[in-house]
Amino acid sequence: MIVLVTDFGLEGPYVGQLQAVLYAQARSVPVVSLFADLPPFRARAAGYLIAPYVSEFPLGTVFVGVVDPGVGTQRRGLVVKASGQWFVGPDNGLFDVICKRARAVSRWEISYRPRRLSASFHGRDVFAPVAARLACGGGIPGRPLRDEASAWAEVADDLFEVVYIDRYGNAITGIRAQVLSAASVLVVAGRRIRFARTFGVAEAGVPFWYENSSGLVEFSLREDSASRVLGLQPGDPVQLMG
Amino acid sequence: MIVLVTDFGLEGPYVGQLQAVLYAQARSVPVVSLFADLPPFRARAAGYLIAPYVSEFPLGTVFVGVVDPGVGTQRRGLVVKASGQWFVGPDNGLFDVICKRARAVSRWEISYRPRRLSASFHGRDVFAPVAARLACGGGIPGRPLRDEASAWAEVADDLFEVVYIDRYGNAITGIRAQVLSAASVLVVAGRRIRFARTFGVAEAGVPFWYENSSGLVEFSLREDSASRVLGLQPGDPVQLMG
Amino acid sequence: MIVLVTDFGLEGPYVGQLQAVLYAQARSVPVVSLFADLPPFRARAAGYLIAPYVSEFPLGTVFVGVVDPGVGTQRRGLVVKASGQWFVGPDNGLFDVICKRARAVSRWEISYRPRRLSASFHGRDVFAPVAARLACGGGIPGRPLRDEASAWAEVADDLFEVVYIDRYGNAITGIRAQVLSAASVLVVAGRRIRFARTFGVAEAGVPFWYENSSGLVEFSLREDSASRVLGLQPGDPVQLMG
Repeated sequence: MIVLVTDFGLEGPYVGQLQAVLYAQARSVPVVSLFADLPPFRARAAGYLIAPYVSEFPLGTVFVGVVDPGVGTQRRGLVVKASGQWFVGPDNGLFDVICKRARAVSRWEISYRPRRLSASFHGRDVFAPVAARLACGGGIPGRPLRDEASAWAEVADDLFEVVYIDRYGNAITGIRAQVLSAASVLVVAGRRIRFARTFGVAEAGVPFWYENSSGLVEFSLREDSASRVLGLQPGDPVQLMG
Repeated sequence: MIVLVTDFGLEGPYVGQLQAVLYAQARSVPVVSLFADLPPFRARAAGYLIAPYVSEFPLGTVFVGVVDPGVGTQRRGLVVKASGQWFVGPDNGLFDVICKRARAVSRWEISYRPRRLSASFHGRDVFAPVAARLACGGGIPGRPLRDEASAWAEVADDLFEVVYIDRYGNAITGIRAQVLSAASVLVVAGRRIRFARTFGVAEAGVPFWYENSSGLVEFSLREDSASRVLGLQPGDPVQLMG
Repeated sequence: MIVLVTDFGLEGPYVGQLQAVLYAQARSVPVVSLFADLPPFRARAAGYLIAPYVSEFPLGTVFVGVVDPGVGTQRRGLVVKASGQWFVGPDNGLFDVICKRARAVSRWEISYRPRRLSASFHGRDVFAPVAARLACGGGIPGRPLRDEASAWAEVADDLFEVVYIDRYGNAITGIRAQVLSAASVLVVAGRRIRFARTFGVAEAGVPFWYENSSGLVEFSLREDSASRVLGLQPGDPVQLMG
């Protein structure tokens, strides 16, 4: 399976252009667009969001991750193998937390250059062809990087920020619920927020945090939009009380 | 074919997470997301919207329907076989009108429990795996329900409400056009609305109702948004004059 | 491959309804939705937008193009073969610029009529079945049109308008960058806009134009929305200075 995690937007041609390259070069491989609406330009925060989702996928899945404000500059392209899954995308921090949490990591700098390389769409021109090749069992078109075991020591374990707001107005954070307890109180937008196990048991009208279905802390409100009521946006800081 | 009808939103990971489960467990079966943007939390109204659309699909199609405000509470999960098609989802009224209109109905309470069951995403954890199994011809993981023939007697034939607003601003109702005539006048938002056969023949600037391509009554405006002009929202009541 | 370019919107059932027809009638053929959000009703402008994108696809690709304000009137349905690719859709100017630029063009008026033909959704009822048939190598269900070589003489080479605004707020025009030079200055919304090679090298806060990854002139702003800052909408005129 090839899985797309991008900030391309649902709108426009960009996801379709990637799918077209993938179906042309790896026809029998299913392609899933997991996130097309990662908050634009925030590669590091996107890493904290996608990390728990990628762990739901089978070994051997190839992820194409594109949050790439530096496209057209000298930033490198990467192939990462982490815990048995493949990641292809720009070298800008997007995969750092996945590497930090992985049992084993290998990385390569992509050396593949297509005949036609645009200045602004390496997702289509470089990352999708490389992903198609990996999904078909082809070799890695790059040179191995020698990473120190300590390479991700500086990368924070969790990101105490809102990293995504979903359709229902739930605000997903970069915090794994496993680092908190049911007694933990969080502060966001000046409001103290307590834990509830899930929507169905939460009090109407009172924002709560809970462990979402992928293990992240999420601010929610029963049958209403927590983000609208609390005024939340991606990037808003979250604090743990006491 | 497996068809998704949900209120997950186009945004975010939820549709992709279902697709991932389906491709992993029923790889050769095409997956179509028919509606990802059903009005949130309105299970009963969503049933009136989707009923005519599902009848366009071949016998044997497996629908996964998720409008599930009660997730995490004790509401049951259902497998429904109605008029030769399969439906998998929560027992909250979403499939009632489909059952009422069907030639033959059988229902099962889902007994399948995955090893990992989240409190908030039974679409991924329960309904998608059950749908994959049905699409592959596997057995039904549940116990049969003994429904009375009169089980859906209380379910209204048609829903005189706006149930969906599309991209063009057309407002789809839960009314089948076959219960009206070209002379019928409807009242919505305090305005009397008359019939036109289709967009191309309607008068500019005058909202009209017509039979949409799936047989539902829809309020429209030629090359403009009827919903904006009339101020319509899902849930708005519709009345038949005279 | 079958590729959908429509103004159906991402929302609602329309793209899914087309996919369902295509998977049912051409099951092994991958389907990609390239554009689902073409600006509504603007068939001619949509042609200038999609023309460079279609050239990225392999020979033999079947495009279903639906921007169809005249559905339900007497406008014809077309099959077009242009430069080795197939196009199916309404005869309303959508494919004109593709024809004008093609090495070789053949056109047919669709004679296929389904048993059930809605007044408002020929995409599902006519164009998708015809596309499925072409993708499976079936014959063309229509009669050939005798086009003069000069048929597209009146069609402008480029369209000096904003034709699409993407998720990042970039405003794509109907102008191929190859007809300009790096010294060209464009005027849009009363502002003079100069060239930059790409995002990464542009000055912060200063809107620029560049050649997007498909060869069209696009107005952009580094890590911000050019369309919001400049107040741009589809249809806004663009002028070349001097």
